[in-house]
Amino acid sequence: MIDVSIIGASGYTGGELLRFLKNHSNVNTITATSRQYNGINVSKVHPHLRGMDLKFRDISPEKVDSDIVFTATPHGASMDIVPNLIERDINVVDLSGDYRFDDIDIYEKWYNLKHSAPLNAVYGLPEIYKDKIKDANLVANPGCFPTGAILASLPLAKEKLVETVIIDSKSGVSGAGIKPTEATHYPNCGDNVIPYAIINHRHMPEIQQEVAKFGDVKVSFTPHLVPVIRGILTTVHTFLKEDVTSDYVKEVYDGFYESKPFVRILDLDEIPRLSAVRGSNYCDIGCFQIDQNGRIVVISAIDNLVKGASGQAIQNMNIMFGFDEKEALDIVGLHP
Amino acid sequence: MIDVSIIGASGYTGGELLRFLKNHSNVNTITATSRQYNGINVSKVHPHLRGMDLKFRDISPEKVDSDIVFTATPHGASMDIVPNLIERDINVVDLSGDYRFDDIDIYEKWYNLKHSAPLNAVYGLPEIYKDKIKDANLVANPGCFPTGAILASLPLAKEKLVETVIIDSKSGVSGAGIKPTEATHYPNCGDNVIPYAIINHRHMPEIQQEVAKFGDVKVSFTPHLVPVIRGILTTVHTFLKEDVTSDYVKEVYDGFYESKPFVRILDLDEIPRLSAVRGSNYCDIGCFQIDQNGRIVVISAIDNLVKGASGQAIQNMNIMFGFDEKEALDIVGLHP
Amino acid sequence: MIDVSIIGASGYTGGELLRFLKNHSNVNTITATSRQYNGINVSKVHPHLRGMDLKFRDISPEKVDSDIVFTATPHGASMDIVPNLIERDINVVDLSGDYRFDDIDIYEKWYNLKHSAPLNAVYGLPEIYKDKIKDANLVANPGCFPTGAILASLPLAKEKLVETVIIDSKSGVSGAGIKPTEATHYPNCGDNVIPYAIINHRHMPEIQQEVAKFGDVKVSFTPHLVPVIRGILTTVHTFLKEDVTSDYVKEVYDGFYESKPFVRILDLDEIPRLSAVRGSNYCDIGCFQIDQNGRIVVISAIDNLVKGASGQAIQNMNIMFGFDEKEALDIVGLHP
Amino acid sequence: MIDVSIIGASGYTGGELLRFLKNHSNVNTITATSRQYNGINVSKVHPHLRGMDLKFRDISPEKVDSDIVFTATPHGASMDIVPNLIERDINVVDLSGDYRFDDIDIYEKWYNLKHSAPLNAVYGLPEIYKDKIKDANLVANPGCFPTGAILASLPLAKEKLVETVIIDSKSGVSGAGIKPTEATHYPNCGDNVIPYAIINHRHMPEIQQEVAKFGDVKVSFTPHLVPVIRGILTTVHTFLKEDVTSDYVKEVYDGFYESKPFVRILDLDEIPRLSAVRGSNYCDIGCFQIDQNGRIVVISAIDNLVKGASGQAIQNMNIMFGFDEKEALDIVGLHP
Repeated sequence: MIDVSIIGASGYTGGELLRFLKNHSNVNTITATSRQYNGINVSKVHPHLRGMDLKFRDISPEKVDSDIVFTATPHGASMDIVPNLIERDINVVDLSGDYRFDDIDIYEKWYNLKHSAPLNAVYGLPEIYKDKIKDANLVANPGCFPTGAILASLPLAKEKLVETVIIDSKSGVSGAGIKPTEATHYPNCGDNVIPYAIINHRHMPEIQQEVAKFGDVKVSFTPHLVPVIRGILTTVHTFLKEDVTSDYVKEVYDGFYESKPFVRILDLDEIPRLSAVRGSNYCDIGCFQIDQNGRIVVISAIDNLVKGASGQAIQNMNIMFGFDEKEALDIVGLHP
Repeated sequence: MIDVSIIGASGYTGGELLRFLKNHSNVNTITATSRQYNGINVSKVHPHLRGMDLKFRDISPEKVDSDIVFTATPHGASMDIVPNLIERDINVVDLSGDYRFDDIDIYEKWYNLKHSAPLNAVYGLPEIYKDKIKDANLVANPGCFPTGAILASLPLAKEKLVETVIIDSKSGVSGAGIKPTEATHYPNCGDNVIPYAIINHRHMPEIQQEVAKFGDVKVSFTPHLVPVIRGILTTVHTFLKEDVTSDYVKEVYDGFYESKPFVRILDLDEIPRLSAVRGSNYCDIGCFQIDQNGRIVVISAIDNLVKGASGQAIQNMNIMFGFDEKEALDIVGLHP
Repeated sequence: MIDVSIIGASGYTGGELLRFLKNHSNVNTITATSRQYNGINVSKVHPHLRGMDLKFRDISPEKVDSDIVFTATPHGASMDIVPNLIERDINVVDLSGDYRFDDIDIYEKWYNLKHSAPLNAVYGLPEIYKDKIKDANLVANPGCFPTGAILASLPLAKEKLVETVIIDSKSGVSGAGIKPTEATHYPNCGDNVIPYAIINHRHMPEIQQEVAKFGDVKVSFTPHLVPVIRGILTTVHTFLKEDVTSDYVKEVYDGFYESKPFVRILDLDEIPRLSAVRGSNYCDIGCFQIDQNGRIVVISAIDNLVKGASGQAIQNMNIMFGFDEKEALDIVGLHP
Repeated sequence: MIDVSIIGASGYTGGELLRFLKNHSNVNTITATSRQYNGINVSKVHPHLRGMDLKFRDISPEKVDSDIVFTATPHGASMDIVPNLIERDINVVDLSGDYRFDDIDIYEKWYNLKHSAPLNAVYGLPEIYKDKIKDANLVANPGCFPTGAILASLPLAKEKLVETVIIDSKSGVSGAGIKPTEATHYPNCGDNVIPYAIINHRHMPEIQQEVAKFGDVKVSFTPHLVPVIRGILTTVHTFLKEDVTSDYVKEVYDGFYESKPFVRILDLDEIPRLSAVRGSNYCDIGCFQIDQNGRIVVISAIDNLVKGASGQAIQNMNIMFGFDEKEALDIVGLHP
């Protein structure tokens, strides 16, 4: 049994972490910090947690003491908090972008921030780095778009089947966070599709970093906001260097993700859909169709707040502490 | 040909006024004021107006000079602006709540504001007050909920058929305005129905004021936000004092709204729907069904930004200046 | 450990039953019947169940053998199936309307069907009839609208506080079932609110039957379809016979639902919201505000497919077999 | 003044044709045919037309007599109807795919139909073929996806800037027509993104045919259904063969579409949005951003039922008869 803290628990990722931790059989106490909501029951911010006996507490990060801390803090804020936790031998899963990059220059360029405290961290994609995560004290939880895009692209890269991937992603609005903005205003994003950060989204270099480890592949990435609450549907368009069949490609994916409990490779006649993964930690990957120009389409579906954030963070915790990888995450999607 | 100004043209009602004024055959110049967007083309805020050659201008209200001014200003701000315009013999259609109340005490209580400058104004519901509007120099444009609720309730009140109306309204999110808030945040209002201001919405006393002029009827009112961009569907539940038929009630409505160009009374087998009025100035009224308890249901549908705001304001302008009541408004809804 | 069958498992209620049964610690084998999909894996119809090793089977009801059968069959079909199951000492939870009525005449009038096989059944609302359900072999699972409406109305009726309830319900589209119709066509119900069966929905007499047992209260009911996938938000408007306070009414509700694990009475400053119960078996009840006319508003929120159907059916099964009432249902809502 | 007929007027394209024809100053009588709804007022099917005095009539195509006929008939049905109309010297705008292809083999392969009656037709994209349309008696109105995709791609093809275009389109559900299907069922397409016909949509060869006329460019195309009623947002991903700037590309587009009244080229800091064109005949094109891999993104937005179908058909009619190209179409989008 472990004690768990969430720093910055009042956002959507905080709410989702609490949803899973609540029923986690290896978790003893939960501490949820928030400056703004100190003393308030968590259900006043996260209404689905109604009945949960837990209040936000305004504890400064240096005073937080537990076996693991989830830093659900903004980019740029985590780097001020994480080093002290690590020094005090507390395991950390950081949900910001601060520790995702091997090359600090890339981080500083794309996030337009100076990194004050680089540390060794493991990129928290368990399907790839499970062994390293087991021994890590700092795990950098992947971004939401990268999770769907990388899982859909890696087998193609590893098999040297492609040189370039063009990733066209469609994200639900919860990906923009709990704070209202012009982009999340219902009359703007309802009944609409909004492309944004067309060529310069900071998830691009994160995808590029991971894909490049498996092959010499260039990444192009464009995200869109769609009138959906949760979910990212990623359409990967790329051109095959060799003349292979859909069946062959499916076999490559089957092999690559064998015994990965949260990746489901679909049959050739199935298409991933958001409702199949809504609220769950699954990443569904499918399609593998090849057109007359040698373009292959691979499609993935995840819940951006679960496999794209908090569910994956719990999966990382489970691996770090030797728990069952599926503990507290063994729930299916909400369809319809 | 007249010159028209909009004070506060950067909100949704401003955008809609421009949509109608753009094609109005009696309008000469249009002035659109905005402090925030001075010098910017209107299409940068109202993207549907792309191609319209008009810039926002930061002109103080006392400097605005035209034949008519629409004050699309917040409650409490209009009262600081309107008296000076009226003094300068400029006609005004005020879209705020500041001039809608016969009894200033009721305004001050429900709006929690001190009224600094009461004036004689005509309540701008043309189906009822067309003759007064013709001669008015200040028209108080009705609220969006009151427009749908009053038009659906008046014939029952006038015929002394009921003592109480229970109004359950469902509004699209654009009714909350152009500014993002927690309530308009897509993950909050999408896939949801949000009752609000359950018993104390300030449109209640406005509905009460107008219905009471036609009969001794008590008004209860509860609004809900639904995941819709435009439109208000109003369900009026009330109990008949006499044993009448649906046919009879429909005849009452047919008579009451005879020759009112923007009210359409539906056949008994039809139900009002938002898409039939979307983008248009129509108010569709129908249903008239009576249940085993003597409860009758009357339903109205309007576009909250058109008949519930800017379209009605143009209709009032048309009447004030002796133009065809339908000028610039003769467009049907957008279905589907 | 029990064996469970679902007759008619290819609809939404079938899919939801499987979602809960999958993780139920007292369930041994599951049989899912479907004529249309015989031999097909359940996940081809219910994509969220991907990975579940279960195929639909075309077994005739008389051949189904298990400890309990859920009849997820249409109104009129259950009466042909249930008697044989009961004769064979199989417990039944029927999700149709066929066994919900004490008075067969009312059933036959409102469902426009001849009832060929009346049986003694317990109305499966565990908050009211838990003791009877314990001993029942046939439980009639309540309708979705009645569940939200009855739970919101009963305390008022029992305390003799009101004479009439006017129920205005807003339902998600999944309530219309898995089969596409004109009403569920996205361009029709998206961006729209559709009142239907204004005074003659067959859930009205079901609500009336149950409320009348607690007090002499007349029921008026009007449902609306809103652009929401899951959830029913019920607004109960009614007039108080006595001058009581919101605090008092809340106390009445607190007392009535004490130790009912799936009803949550909200604080006076909270409003029920669909996302707080989405995917869960909770019914949230709140508001209790009283207006100047003595009208009180009570609002409830449920997930129509869970507390309004399959979750409640599992809750009934748990009670019938002496399992923990919350087994397999101890999951919170999906917010946002 | 001309007389106009619509064969198959009960679908969405029929409803939109009527919306524009209603206010067209050069149109005398309108005939709307429908077998199913013979004798019924058009507003019973198209509720936004409430108040329009027009009934569907069951007239066989050979009996239809007017100056122009819009055949809003299914693929495969138009070829049985159009030849007789042309023989009788009636101008035709065909909204099906039957006359869009130069090469009948391609039509027969992709539509899986035998073409019984090929005729000379002009492809009705006025921005390209205006001169030919002037003299045509048969215009094949383009498909909805092709309209957005071709207009976004042609300038790149003509300038020989690219070799391949990868078109990722997101369509509103009205594109699937008025008939309910599993794909248009709200619980399926709401809160979801559904890729379909991934590599074999029959609009692909139509796009390919037109793009190839301007340059040796290969087309890949994948459509998605998004929870939107109207609109197609097309994201064109392609790789530049030369090192040019965004400014240069914008100039190319500005030049290509100079004096085309319904194409608006956006400033570099603007992104096309569906609400800016909703209900209108505009096609907005913008973005022109170039990433580190030399990929350029061009985005277009249209209303699939207007510029993608009925609005374009009216535009074609206007050109065929020498009317003002904008007659009846000079309306802006509905934002928000």
